Amino acid sequence: MSQILPKRTEDFAAWYNELVKRAGLAENSPVRGCMIIKPYGFAIWEKMQAILDQAFKATGHANAYFPMLIPKSYLSREADHIEGFAKECAVVTHYRLKKASDGQGVVVDPEARLEEELIIRPTSETIIWHTYKNWIQSYRDLPLLINQWSNIVRWEMRPRLFLRTAEVLWQEGHTAHATRVEAEQEVLQMLNIYDEFARSYMAVPLLKGIKTEHERFAGAEATYTIEALMQDGKALQAGTSHFLGQKFAQAFDVTFANQAGQLDHVWGTSWGVTTRLIGALIMTHSDDEGLVLPPRLAPIQVVIIPIYKSETEQKLVVQQAIILQEALKAQGVAVKLDDRDMYKPGWKFAEYELKGVPLRMAIGPKDLVNHTVELARRDTKEKITISVDNMVAVIQALLTDIQNYLYQRAVAFRESHTTSVGTYEAFKTVIAQKGGFVLAHWDGTTETEKKIQVETKATIRCIPLDASPEQGTCIYSGKPSQQRVVFAQAY
Amino acid sequence: MSQILPKRTEDFAAWYNELVKRAGLAENSPVRGCMIIKPYGFAIWEKMQAILDQAFKATGHANAYFPMLIPKSYLSREADHIEGFAKECAVVTHYRLKKASDGQGVVVDPEARLEEELIIRPTSETIIWHTYKNWIQSYRDLPLLINQWSNIVRWEMRPRLFLRTAEVLWQEGHTAHATRVEAEQEVLQMLNIYDEFARSYMAVPLLKGIKTEHERFAGAEATYTIEALMQDGKALQAGTSHFLGQKFAQAFDVTFANQAGQLDHVWGTSWGVTTRLIGALIMTHSDDEGLVLPPRLAPIQVVIIPIYKSETEQKLVVQQAIILQEALKAQGVAVKLDDRDMYKPGWKFAEYELKGVPLRMAIGPKDLVNHTVELARRDTKEKITISVDNMVAVIQALLTDIQNYLYQRAVAFRESHTTSVGTYEAFKTVIAQKGGFVLAHWDGTTETEKKIQVETKATIRCIPLDASPEQGTCIYSGKPSQQRVVFAQAY
Repeated sequence: MSQILPKRTEDFAAWYNELVKRAGLAENSPVRGCMIIKPYGFAIWEKMQAILDQAFKATGHANAYFPMLIPKSYLSREADHIEGFAKECAVVTHYRLKKASDGQGVVVDPEARLEEELIIRPTSETIIWHTYKNWIQSYRDLPLLINQWSNIVRWEMRPRLFLRTAEVLWQEGHTAHATRVEAEQEVLQMLNIYDEFARSYMAVPLLKGIKTEHERFAGAEATYTIEALMQDGKALQAGTSHFLGQKFAQAFDVTFANQAGQLDHVWGTSWGVTTRLIGALIMTHSDDEGLVLPPRLAPIQVVIIPIYKSETEQKLVVQQAIILQEALKAQGVAVKLDDRDMYKPGWKFAEYELKGVPLRMAIGPKDLVNHTVELARRDTKEKITISVDNMVAVIQALLTDIQNYLYQRAVAFRESHTTSVGTYEAFKTVIAQKGGFVLAHWDGTTETEKKIQVETKATIRCIPLDASPEQGTCIYSGKPSQQRVVFAQAY
Repeated sequence: MSQILPKRTEDFAAWYNELVKRAGLAENSPVRGCMIIKPYGFAIWEKMQAILDQAFKATGHANAYFPMLIPKSYLSREADHIEGFAKECAVVTHYRLKKASDGQGVVVDPEARLEEELIIRPTSETIIWHTYKNWIQSYRDLPLLINQWSNIVRWEMRPRLFLRTAEVLWQEGHTAHATRVEAEQEVLQMLNIYDEFARSYMAVPLLKGIKTEHERFAGAEATYTIEALMQDGKALQAGTSHFLGQKFAQAFDVTFANQAGQLDHVWGTSWGVTTRLIGALIMTHSDDEGLVLPPRLAPIQVVIIPIYKSETEQKLVVQQAIILQEALKAQGVAVKLDDRDMYKPGWKFAEYELKGVPLRMAIGPKDLVNHTVELARRDTKEKITISVDNMVAVIQALLTDIQNYLYQRAVAFRESHTTSVGTYEAFKTVIAQKGGFVLAHWDGTTETEKKIQVETKATIRCIPLDASPEQGTCIYSGKPSQQRVVFAQAY
């Protein structure tokens, strides 16, 4: 680990990209915009999946699987939806290759052209609502609460690992309800599940709010969002939950008979988070030495590194390390003993620092004599020597402490990077120099929103849910405004 | 549930298809060959995934994720591989749609043609071995033990739910090793994991063997298979494990420095099972009344159905049902209480029979007085009345018993449908009239294998691993043979 990462203050983007690769999280693939998620990165995703999946099921949702390929014509069924998604589709036009006539490689067989082209799903509303038409007849079939874990493709011209990729792993919930109120409750329930997950597991505080019309999901009546703030002062949309109204039900003719026997269109929602969450995790907590992971999502929570010179020392130290490893395992701690002799302790220290393992335990010959181990925290770099007698309890307490510390640090960063401004001049200065969330009055028009974006690259991240009404005037147009909205430059 | 399923003896294919749909496992989608896996079917797949994933991790494998889109040229790198897979590829040629000039819907934007077409992975050897080239430099990097859960596409002209679909959910393991012996051990280890899974969880006995050259995976040096026998006497290939030799390492130039510092190509394996396992599960155990599920894979192991007439009875019976449900849950039994008032008990009985729930518990007013419940087994249809006092223990014992019974019944069926023949006449008669596995001598040539297939539709399922050498003559050519192989008509 002789190479040093770029510094965050010097080149945040380069730091991020190098960190993702060198910590073994992901790398680029030969297909532009498609990434390879390496085992260490995928282990984080698996933890996220397990926790979210449990939360979805606890609230009555079941998983299912709908086809990845969607007939082109389906996308056109909902007018706004096609506007939003046609631009970035991967299109399957043929179903066979054949040998090239010059014998070199293979070519597309022109005889195997599909009658109707197929789209790789950019999201699954169309195929799912087409299916729901047959699944829903009566109020007895509602609510229909389905989730799927899947891959989607949205063509990306400026891809970045985890943050913006052509192929994305995600979950997409798609629900149908008998009433508007119930659908609206579902939308907020799922937003709150994401928020709670981010806070409790990712140690990332989120801002909950509603998207403006301009930033709304193509086909939704309202899009709710959770917005995180990264260390470089840019916002990151971490997930969305959409109230679809009856739009998809109308587009795909999904009706139900209510208890009085009357036919009505059902009310829909959809909601999703992606592997982008891993990008948010990295950019919230990590430092110039590498990744910093909150213990509740760390694939390895504690790494044990034996220190020795002679073979005799090695044998005794590793023996003790195995005993401690087993004691931790028995209490559910994700512990790894790295007893590989081909790497030196110093190399291992740097390696697990880069990989963001929350706690490092070193054991040497002196520790055997003193009945101690040395612990080093990844977040604060503090080192302490503790007795092996209460080792497990101390480690469990430290892991909790690290989890809390990371969250508090992120909250403090966000607070110190949230600024209220009263004028457009002040707005521009804060966006350009300090970054972060900027609370300002806005006149509610897409026109103003777009102009501000063109001039400052800042977008309205959301109209926050918890804001109090406040009379004011739009920083750009001077027109009246009833509430501050949150601006930021964003990923 | 007034409609009755087709009878297995009258039309096995129709029975299967209707059962899959009516039990809520899966249905066809608007895209030919792509199926929708419904929540109940997907819940079975999730159980399979969880068990297999744990077995893979327990043997040192880690999950990762490689892109779904593969550059067309990659498929040509390994000569046999392209022969096997070019015929059935979904080809992405464009990355954008645009509005049709007549304003009706969308068309493919001819400006957005890809320079090189992309293939939706039919399997991932090519993209993975391309990546391994950078991951492997030295013996320290080996073995590399990776698995991925993913979707693949192989165009299918005659699709059938679960058994043969264009899009398939599966897992694919891809490993690299320093030595031939180690790779060969890996191939067998994974075959044994599949075998153990099928026996212990699916209650399906498997025949383990090697595929003939003709049936080998395109690009493998040897393909090992697990073959199951369905109730209609047809075989079903349930999974495969491939020894790739150094073929992909050579095609993608993946070398490593051994401990002596010499460069050599690594040795590879790949292995996979798909949602087809669900097809095998259904066709092994189910009957004319519907699905029969082994308890260890059943999403619901016990369903409780309250019986009542008056509202007072309803209240008391449901109260007791909830107590019993909680007692079962506490012991890890997957129990569902169906207390919906809008369906009658008889309807529910038929519904859960169709859905293959292993045990049904009915509780009525008399049971409250007698301190009893009535249990009905799905497999044997036996009913017993038991005391609530030892209800949990009895149910746990019954679930174990059902699991074992299903396995033993499947073993007995396979034994009674495995026939040794000495002549081609006898062979043809057995294949045409009785079906099942037919053990016969074969001269080892693809020519004979193909002729037998054309004449009888039977293929060589495998050269069994556990067979003893036996001198004989090929039933078709009369040439000498050292071992019987297993023929069958197959899915």
